[in-house]
Amino acid sequence: MMKEIGKIDWAFSAGRIPFRSTGKEPEMVSHDKIAILNTTEEEAVVELFIFYEDEKPVGPFEIKIEPKRLKKVGFNFLIDPTCIYLERNYSCYIRSNVKVVVQFSRMNTGMAANAEMGTMAFPVDS
Amino acid sequence: MMKEIGKIDWAFSAGRIPFRSTGKEPEMVSHDKIAILNTTEEEAVVELFIFYEDEKPVGPFEIKIEPKRLKKVGFNFLIDPTCIYLERNYSCYIRSNVKVVVQFSRMNTGMAANAEMGTMAFPVDS
Amino acid sequence: MMKEIGKIDWAFSAGRIPFRSTGKEPEMVSHDKIAILNTTEEEAVVELFIFYEDEKPVGPFEIKIEPKRLKKVGFNFLIDPTCIYLERNYSCYIRSNVKVVVQFSRMNTGMAANAEMGTMAFPVDS
Amino acid sequence: MMKEIGKIDWAFSAGRIPFRSTGKEPEMVSHDKIAILNTTEEEAVVELFIFYEDEKPVGPFEIKIEPKRLKKVGFNFLIDPTCIYLERNYSCYIRSNVKVVVQFSRMNTGMAANAEMGTMAFPVDS
Repeated sequence: MMKEIGKIDWAFSAGRIPFRSTGKEPEMVSHDKIAILNTTEEEAVVELFIFYEDEKPVGPFEIKIEPKRLKKVGFNFLIDPTCIYLERNYSCYIRSNVKVVVQFSRMNTGMAANAEMGTMAFPVDS
Repeated sequence: MMKEIGKIDWAFSAGRIPFRSTGKEPEMVSHDKIAILNTTEEEAVVELFIFYEDEKPVGPFEIKIEPKRLKKVGFNFLIDPTCIYLERNYSCYIRSNVKVVVQFSRMNTGMAANAEMGTMAFPVDS
Repeated sequence: MMKEIGKIDWAFSAGRIPFRSTGKEPEMVSHDKIAILNTTEEEAVVELFIFYEDEKPVGPFEIKIEPKRLKKVGFNFLIDPTCIYLERNYSCYIRSNVKVVVQFSRMNTGMAANAEMGTMAFPVDS
Repeated sequence: MMKEIGKIDWAFSAGRIPFRSTGKEPEMVSHDKIAILNTTEEEAVVELFIFYEDEKPVGPFEIKIEPKRLKKVGFNFLIDPTCIYLERNYSCYIRSNVKVVVQFSRMNTGMAANAEMGTMAFPVDS
């Protein structure tokens, strides 16, 4: 059997959804996303908490990932309990009930070419 | 002698092979790749397992790396036991028999300029 | 309650503020930045120390982050006790009084398209 | 006093020096680089070992970093004991006598715009 891999808690701090997009849709639309991998035999129930520079945190945003699946979450698609404004700095704390692996990625096509950025999120020590 | 370095298990979650390419081949062809470094005195036998959003995982894809060598693996070149569709989200769990070092990289030249992204994969605690 | 997450000490070594910018202001201005997330109930008092290739370190630059907030710091905006020249290599050691999460990011729009780079900073073992 | 920070051993696996450059020199020249930060009171003597896909490793390449300084090393400038060909995959193991912090970065301006990529190198457990 495959091991259960990852961490329960993750975070990243340099979120900012780009406003402008150019190029062919859907693959060149600007975005901030996280990809959450659940290798376990259980459904992962993940809560996202969003932090700002000048306002109190919002959340939890609840995301469910089936066993042995991944889910890619675009921050501009979060709507419950609220939404995240474009071009506004935010950080994100990710809390799961089972071990998951979280990677952050951004595409910014605002200047007629695509820029991409990606990093594993920070795995919090349990 | 040089130490054996790295980890046995690695993972990344934000895979997606870009569809469009522009520019001079081969160096500007869009791709998702991992580079696996084997500093040990033994052959590394590495198994890749691919996870999807809406289908069960596939694998193992077996990769062998000679002692004291690296191997760079393009995800669009994997064909056995199956292949990976372009522009489809995937995650990857990497399991080795010896310690290795794994880095993920993407090039996306889909908009007439090259975008690049790279991050060390997540080293799973043993 | 939410856990306090992160580390007390962080560092990154490949700093360099790009000189040239093109494109729409303010979102396409070239920069080096860190985003510092403070999830704790206390104000974070963070000190930055800047290292160079050919001169002794400067600092501390003091940054305060309110409880449950983030702060994004552009290295070209640091002025006290001194400033950082553009296109000059620097490294940064980040020391906090409480746990924080630190991510480094760069935007370089010097060639009529935007390039972006980002990585979690290195979390120093306590 | 400031703590000594970092690790003794580091590695990255996805090296490849881009061949083509466009744009204004020197800041837009394509490159693979590492930035090594030495926060200690001693000179850091760092050895780089380069691994290939189809040939035995080469090195050590010796780099010295003064106390409280950083050094940025371009892989295309390494010449002793040998050099590294452009557009050839390589990995790098970095061994120091004192704790250092290592970040990898690439600039690729091969398609008339600059792409940038960066990640902390993998810190090897002691």
